[in-house]
Amino acid sequence: MIEGMGADLRRLLRAGPGGVELAAVDPRSRPGLTAEQGKQWARERRSELGRELARQQEMLFASAKTAAPGSAAARRRVLLVLQGMDCSGKGGTVRRVVGAMNPIGLRVTAFGPPTEQERERHFLWRVARALPSAGQVGVFDRSHYEDVLIARVRQLVPESVWRGRYDEINQWESELVAGGVTIVKVMLHLSYREQTERLAARLANPAKHWKLDPSDLDERTRWGDYQEAYAELLARCSTDAAPWYVVPADRKWYRDWAVTELLLATCRDLGLRYPPATVDVAEFQRRLAATAQWGTGPGKG
Amino acid sequence: MIEGMGADLRRLLRAGPGGVELAAVDPRSRPGLTAEQGKQWARERRSELGRELARQQEMLFASAKTAAPGSAAARRRVLLVLQGMDCSGKGGTVRRVVGAMNPIGLRVTAFGPPTEQERERHFLWRVARALPSAGQVGVFDRSHYEDVLIARVRQLVPESVWRGRYDEINQWESELVAGGVTIVKVMLHLSYREQTERLAARLANPAKHWKLDPSDLDERTRWGDYQEAYAELLARCSTDAAPWYVVPADRKWYRDWAVTELLLATCRDLGLRYPPATVDVAEFQRRLAATAQWGTGPGKG
Repeated sequence: MIEGMGADLRRLLRAGPGGVELAAVDPRSRPGLTAEQGKQWARERRSELGRELARQQEMLFASAKTAAPGSAAARRRVLLVLQGMDCSGKGGTVRRVVGAMNPIGLRVTAFGPPTEQERERHFLWRVARALPSAGQVGVFDRSHYEDVLIARVRQLVPESVWRGRYDEINQWESELVAGGVTIVKVMLHLSYREQTERLAARLANPAKHWKLDPSDLDERTRWGDYQEAYAELLARCSTDAAPWYVVPADRKWYRDWAVTELLLATCRDLGLRYPPATVDVAEFQRRLAATAQWGTGPGKG
Repeated sequence: MIEGMGADLRRLLRAGPGGVELAAVDPRSRPGLTAEQGKQWARERRSELGRELARQQEMLFASAKTAAPGSAAARRRVLLVLQGMDCSGKGGTVRRVVGAMNPIGLRVTAFGPPTEQERERHFLWRVARALPSAGQVGVFDRSHYEDVLIARVRQLVPESVWRGRYDEINQWESELVAGGVTIVKVMLHLSYREQTERLAARLANPAKHWKLDPSDLDERTRWGDYQEAYAELLARCSTDAAPWYVVPADRKWYRDWAVTELLLATCRDLGLRYPPATVDVAEFQRRLAATAQWGTGPGKG
């Protein structure tokens, strides 16, 4: 079994109950790593940790599948919430960190601007529908937190409405946790300068032109407002039940390594095991041996 | 761009309109490969092809996202249907072949025995609900074909019912195809002997004991009946609109390589491209340059 440093990293990156002074967190910093632990080290490490993450995911899946109906293990699931400004690497994190797991046990949902149908419902309706099933790892690429981010910055709803959402979110998340969902929330903390460079790189690559959206530039002009909105949700919604982590995201290799460690540490806390057989192994063995010789039917190798 | 040999392989593995004599297909054979192209070659090749598959998937996603509403491209999606006896490697194929793609563009569903709710509905109800969205690649690990496999072998419904399902399936699949779904159906063709060995390997590995199911052994005793049931569905449901391929599956590396080639060839037939920008690139560039210097707000790197 590969040991991660996830527990320490959680302490280093956790947004405390009082929140985080975002301006004091350098998006190019690399908390938890020594000077020698650079890009190559982190990539190799993430690759190892990814295999362990896949193992944890399999144990989660197996446990839920074999657990007694109604038991805690039968309801257990994990939810990773990713938030961050445009170009902060939510998509890349899904591809490289989440991509290390088995697709069969994943439920990944990207949330764009709400559809008309979604706008008619409570803001938690669409995310509730996208929750992972028991035994699955769910991933939200953007989430209900947009409803206290763009909704606040762009005044899509009155202030009294978005102000009330922090408590609504905390209440909902604590119900999920009580229902067996383990929640990890990650803010990918990008610098304005790095966003500029990534947008310029998109412009330079025709294969990425489809990603260009004029709203990217509009939201950029509200950078300070967004940082404020992030600071408040980190202060209000980083609960013990569902903590927020701030991951410096200017370096992609750091971001991928750190999110892998956070997710892995979270899974490890569940104390997962491969469940024992639900059948009598000796009897299964005997029956298998008894049928091993069948050898004349159609389609035999 | 990496050239695959998918087109040739499709010809080699395709179940013709008249079906396939399964007994004549050696599950250890490796159609399409020379004697020199063995395990190592196939693994390296699959890894290269996997990157190309991910690129195709991204173009599919991008095309659907940027296409004019109601256009053909806006509805386009791909569905991979995997069938095969227990231990034939449906799960391994999902992990290694499908796992090469980006989880955000995937919808993978494993179908077990129908729930009570599902049994009350038409047999196509649950699969219809699991179809990929536009721009996604969907994967069925088992499928509606169980309704002419176990349902037939175990007489879960009267013969007149399952006999009618071949036409129902063809009709439904042709409607899907007309609606923009490209369907690839793969039967993983395993030998009885290899299944014996894989079940024995499961028994020997406590981390795999949770997978043991007494029904695995029960179904084994009906091996010949299942081969017959497969032969009939291959004969009845391998249409030009939604062809079946029979992939020899005793060698895992062959199976993974072959399914990757089949899926990739299918994607390539769609003639996907990265769509052009939906914005004025020069104008975007100008606005980006104009905002590049903003540099004193909070949270800046």
